[in-house]
Amino acid sequence: MLDSWNYKEKNIVQRDINPKYPLASKPKKATIVKVKNIAFGGNEAVVIAGPCSVESREQVLSTAESVKKSGAVMLRGGAYKPRTCPYDFQGLGIDALEILREAGDKYDLPIVTEVMSEEDIEIVSDYADMLQVGARNMQNFALLKKLSKVNKPILFKRSVSATIKEWLSAAEYLLHGGNENVVLCERGIRSFDNTLRNTLDLASVALIKELTHLPIIVDPSHATGKRSLISATSKAAIAIGADGLIIEVHPTPSRALSDSEQQLTFKGFAELMQNLQSPLRPLYKNKKTVVMM
Amino acid sequence: MLDSWNYKEKNIVQRDINPKYPLASKPKKATIVKVKNIAFGGNEAVVIAGPCSVESREQVLSTAESVKKSGAVMLRGGAYKPRTCPYDFQGLGIDALEILREAGDKYDLPIVTEVMSEEDIEIVSDYADMLQVGARNMQNFALLKKLSKVNKPILFKRSVSATIKEWLSAAEYLLHGGNENVVLCERGIRSFDNTLRNTLDLASVALIKELTHLPIIVDPSHATGKRSLISATSKAAIAIGADGLIIEVHPTPSRALSDSEQQLTFKGFAELMQNLQSPLRPLYKNKKTVVMM
Amino acid sequence: MLDSWNYKEKNIVQRDINPKYPLASKPKKATIVKVKNIAFGGNEAVVIAGPCSVESREQVLSTAESVKKSGAVMLRGGAYKPRTCPYDFQGLGIDALEILREAGDKYDLPIVTEVMSEEDIEIVSDYADMLQVGARNMQNFALLKKLSKVNKPILFKRSVSATIKEWLSAAEYLLHGGNENVVLCERGIRSFDNTLRNTLDLASVALIKELTHLPIIVDPSHATGKRSLISATSKAAIAIGADGLIIEVHPTPSRALSDSEQQLTFKGFAELMQNLQSPLRPLYKNKKTVVMM
Amino acid sequence: MLDSWNYKEKNIVQRDINPKYPLASKPKKATIVKVKNIAFGGNEAVVIAGPCSVESREQVLSTAESVKKSGAVMLRGGAYKPRTCPYDFQGLGIDALEILREAGDKYDLPIVTEVMSEEDIEIVSDYADMLQVGARNMQNFALLKKLSKVNKPILFKRSVSATIKEWLSAAEYLLHGGNENVVLCERGIRSFDNTLRNTLDLASVALIKELTHLPIIVDPSHATGKRSLISATSKAAIAIGADGLIIEVHPTPSRALSDSEQQLTFKGFAELMQNLQSPLRPLYKNKKTVVMM
Repeated sequence: MLDSWNYKEKNIVQRDINPKYPLASKPKKATIVKVKNIAFGGNEAVVIAGPCSVESREQVLSTAESVKKSGAVMLRGGAYKPRTCPYDFQGLGIDALEILREAGDKYDLPIVTEVMSEEDIEIVSDYADMLQVGARNMQNFALLKKLSKVNKPILFKRSVSATIKEWLSAAEYLLHGGNENVVLCERGIRSFDNTLRNTLDLASVALIKELTHLPIIVDPSHATGKRSLISATSKAAIAIGADGLIIEVHPTPSRALSDSEQQLTFKGFAELMQNLQSPLRPLYKNKKTVVMM
Repeated sequence: MLDSWNYKEKNIVQRDINPKYPLASKPKKATIVKVKNIAFGGNEAVVIAGPCSVESREQVLSTAESVKKSGAVMLRGGAYKPRTCPYDFQGLGIDALEILREAGDKYDLPIVTEVMSEEDIEIVSDYADMLQVGARNMQNFALLKKLSKVNKPILFKRSVSATIKEWLSAAEYLLHGGNENVVLCERGIRSFDNTLRNTLDLASVALIKELTHLPIIVDPSHATGKRSLISATSKAAIAIGADGLIIEVHPTPSRALSDSEQQLTFKGFAELMQNLQSPLRPLYKNKKTVVMM
Repeated sequence: MLDSWNYKEKNIVQRDINPKYPLASKPKKATIVKVKNIAFGGNEAVVIAGPCSVESREQVLSTAESVKKSGAVMLRGGAYKPRTCPYDFQGLGIDALEILREAGDKYDLPIVTEVMSEEDIEIVSDYADMLQVGARNMQNFALLKKLSKVNKPILFKRSVSATIKEWLSAAEYLLHGGNENVVLCERGIRSFDNTLRNTLDLASVALIKELTHLPIIVDPSHATGKRSLISATSKAAIAIGADGLIIEVHPTPSRALSDSEQQLTFKGFAELMQNLQSPLRPLYKNKKTVVMM
Repeated sequence: MLDSWNYKEKNIVQRDINPKYPLASKPKKATIVKVKNIAFGGNEAVVIAGPCSVESREQVLSTAESVKKSGAVMLRGGAYKPRTCPYDFQGLGIDALEILREAGDKYDLPIVTEVMSEEDIEIVSDYADMLQVGARNMQNFALLKKLSKVNKPILFKRSVSATIKEWLSAAEYLLHGGNENVVLCERGIRSFDNTLRNTLDLASVALIKELTHLPIIVDPSHATGKRSLISATSKAAIAIGADGLIIEVHPTPSRALSDSEQQLTFKGFAELMQNLQSPLRPLYKNKKTVVMM
C-alpha cells in the first residue's frame, strides 16, 4: 500500500525498468533533488509560491516577503511567458530575471522561472536556481537536449495532453543527456470537461511514485484555474504523496497581467498553508455496533 | 477558502442558483442524507465497502465481517451488473439481493446496490437501503424519473463523460420528481490517458461542494482501477472534502468475477483505513531563515 | 484498399472474429437491413431527414413533403426527447407518434424515432418502422435486452464517450438477443475541443466497415451542431463509405424547440442533396512535368 | 452552404475578425500559398507524398519517382525527427536534407520537411522549399517567432490537443511576425478513444474554411495510423473541402524506421490517387414514389 512520503517506502527497489524510460524507472531509492538548501523528494513537502508573471519590482518583493512569512521556501515568477496569443503580455525578460534574483537573495528563497527558448538557456541559468520547462514545451526535444547539458535542476511540467509514458519518456531526454536533477510537476490535463481550466490528475501523482524515483510536485493554480479551489486541491495533493506544491500568489490578483482568476492573495495563501497542516476529516463511526463487536 | 467538511462552512448560503439545476444549487446549508443510522454530508466521512459483484453467500458474509471490523459503516455489492459485453458475468440478481440483506442485517451495515432497469426498482427497493444509479445510466432519464418517486436514498454516480453541469442537471431529475435524498459519487472520468482505468477528477469534488448542497463521495476503485493506488487516492479524497468513500473489497481479488485488478484484500482495506487517519506529510521548513525573520 | 460501398468489396470475408462482439464481427458479407422498401448497407446511401422534435402536425407534414421532394427516403422526428435538463421540452409523446405515422404514410417515408424507456417499446413499435437508441442509452443494457426481442430494425447511435469496442459490444446485446437488424450511427464523440458541439469521428466509419458487417450511417447534425457545416460533413461521410445520413430539417430552425442551431431549412437541405452528387475537387497537376515523364 | 473549393465561394468576405487572431481571420478572399510552381488554396487539391523518415538515398529517390508517377506534386520526408523516446531513431539530419534536395530536383517535386530547433532553421531553409512545424511544436513560440521572419512557406500542423482558437492564435504568431505563407494541416487530435492513433477532426477543416482565409490540408497517415484507412479518409478530406493531402509512402513499409503501420506502399498510393477521382456513392432513390410526385 502506497504512502509515498513515508521514509521506509522510499527504499522500494523492486520497480520494473521501462524500456521507453530506463533511467527514470531505475529501481533505486527516491532521488533527492537539491535546489540550494531545499530538498525535493525527502520526508517534507516543498512549497513554492510567487506571481504568475513578474510585473514590477515592488510586486515581486512584497510577494516574496509575504509568502516567506507564510512558509513558502522557494519563489516562482514568469520572466518569459508562453502565451496562446501573440498580442498578450509576453513577460519582462531580463528585467524580470533581475527582479526575481534580488527578491530571492533578499528573502533567502531559491528561484524557479521558465525557459522557453534554446537561446535563453544561458541567460536564465545566470539568474535562476531552477529552470522550468512549461507544459507547451514538454516535447520540445531540441530544448530538452540542451537542458540535459545544463548544470541546473529542472522543474518539468506535464503537457496537458501527455500520457504518463510520454511524460516520463520526455524526462528521459534530460536524464539521458546527463541532467539527473529533474522534478516532475503535474499541472492538470485537458479533458472533455472545461468547467475548470484543466483536470487535475492526482491519481497519476501516486502512480508516478511507483513508476519512477523522481520527485513530483503539483501545481493546483493551473490545474484548477479557480482561486477558491486551490487550498482544497493543495491539501489533496499532499495527502496523495506529492513532494511539493507550486502556487501562484499576487498582491492584487484582479489586476494581474495574466492568470488573474487563479492567483491567491497574500491572505489566501496564508490560509492555505494553515489548511495544509490541519487534521483530516474524521470517519463516521457506528458507535452502537463498535461496542457490540 | 474552502474547507468543506468544517462545520461552520456548512452554513454557506450565498450560492448562486443555476437555472439548469435550481434545486441542486439552492442556497441552503449542506443537505444531510440519512441511510438508516448513517449520515452523509455531516462532519464525518462515511466509508462504504464490499465486493464489486455478489458471487456467493460466504464471500459477502466474510467481506462484511471484515470491513466492519476495519471501520466501514455500509456494505456495497453488485446484484445486477452493467457489463460492456453480453457474454460477461451479469450478476446473480435476486439471489444476490438476499445475500446482501442477510449480511447487512447480521453486521448492522446498511446496504447499497445498483438498479439498472426500470422494472427492477421495486424488487431492489425491497432489499436495499440505498439504490445506486451507475455511470452508464446517469442520463437514463426514464429510470431517473421513476427513481424520483421512490422513497429510498440514491447514490448517483457521474457518467465517465459528463460535465459538472450535465451531472447536476441529471441529479435535478431526481430532486424535481421529489426525491431529495441524493448522494453524488465521483468515480473517474474518461480522458485521453488510459494508463489508469479512468481519470479521478478530485478538483470537481471541491467544486461540487461550492455549487450544490448535496453530499458527494468518491469511488477510488473504479477511478483508478489499480489496487496499489486506492489507499493514496482515498486519503486525497478525504483531504479535498469528500463526504465519504466507496471501496471494492474481496476475499481473494484475483479470483473475482469482475474488476479483479481493483478490489482490495481484507488486509489492504484495513491498512487503507489506518492511512486515512494518519497525519499528513509535514512541510519543508527553512530552519535558518525562519529564525532570521 | 477500402472503398466500402463498392459492390465487390462487400464480399470481404477475411474479417477476424472479436471475442467481445463475435456476432457483430462475423466474417460475412455486408448485412443489408431493410426498413420497409429501404435498404441500408447496399450500393446506395440512404438519406433520412426530419425535425429534431415533433412540434406540430403542420411542422412535420410540411417537412416530410419538402425533404421527400429533395430526395430523402425516410423521415425522422423525436417524440420522446432525452434532455439534459428536466425543465427542457420533453417531447409530445404519443401525439408525436401519431403525427409521424400520418406524415410517413402520406409521403411514403418509413419513420424512425427514439425509444427512451423500457415501458415505451411497445407503443413506439406500434407506430415506428425503425426504433432509435440514442447516444445516452447506448449502454442502457436493460433497454437493449428488451429491444433484442423486438421485431423492428434498430438505429443504434454511438455514445459520445464510447470506444469502438464498447459500441460494438453494446450492439452485440441486440444481435445476441436475436435482433439482427441493427444499423449503427456515428453522431460525434466528446473531445477536449468544444468549438463544435461534438467531434465527428469519420475515420471510425471506415474502421467499422472493416470490423463488422453491419451498416453504418452518419448524423452530421449532432456531430457538428452547426448549420453551415452540415453539407460539407455529409459529403465527407458519403465519401468515406457511410451507408447513409440522418439530417435534421425544420421549417423555421430559429423557432425550433430543440437544436435550433443545427437544423437545416428546406432550402438548405435541398442544396445539401445537390452537393452530395456534385463532383469532388480536382487534384493539382504539374502540367509541365507530366509531359516530361 | 459551404462548398469550400468552389471558386465563387472563395470570394466570401463577410467573415468576423477574431481578436485573438485578427490577421488569420481577416475578411479577405482565400489566400493562395505558392511553393515554387505549386499553389495551395486554389481550385485544385495538392497531394504531397513521401516517406515518414529519410532513411537512404535509394529509398527517397525510388519513392519520389513512384509518387510522382501516381500524381503527387510535392515530396515530404523527415530529416530531424521529433521522437517520443530518446532511444528511437532521431533522423539523418543534414544527410537527409541533401537526399531530399536531390530527389526534389530530379523529379521536379518541391520538398517539405520539419524543422524542430531554432538553430536548424537556417540549414533547413537552405535545402527545403517549405518548412514544417510539427504538432509537438505548435506552441513552441520561440520557434514560431523566428519562423515568422523566414522567407519560406510554413506547413503548420495542429497540436493533438489544440482547440481551433489555440491553433489559429499560434498561426497568428507567424502572420504577425511577417510570414503570410502559412498552410494549416489537420493531423488528428487526441480523444478518449485510442482504437486508432488519433481522431481525425474533419469537421474542423470545414470550420477553418469559414474562420480563416488560410489554406488547410489533411494528414490522414498520422490521423489514423492505419494503412487500410488512408484512402477512404483522404477521399473524405477532399470531399469536405481540404486544399490538399500529405501522405506517407515507403518502398517497404514493414521495414520503415518509423511509422511502419501507416505508410503506404507504392501500389497503395497509386490506388489512393485513383480513388480520389472516382465518383461518390449514389443515393438511394425510392423509384416508385418519385414517379408519383
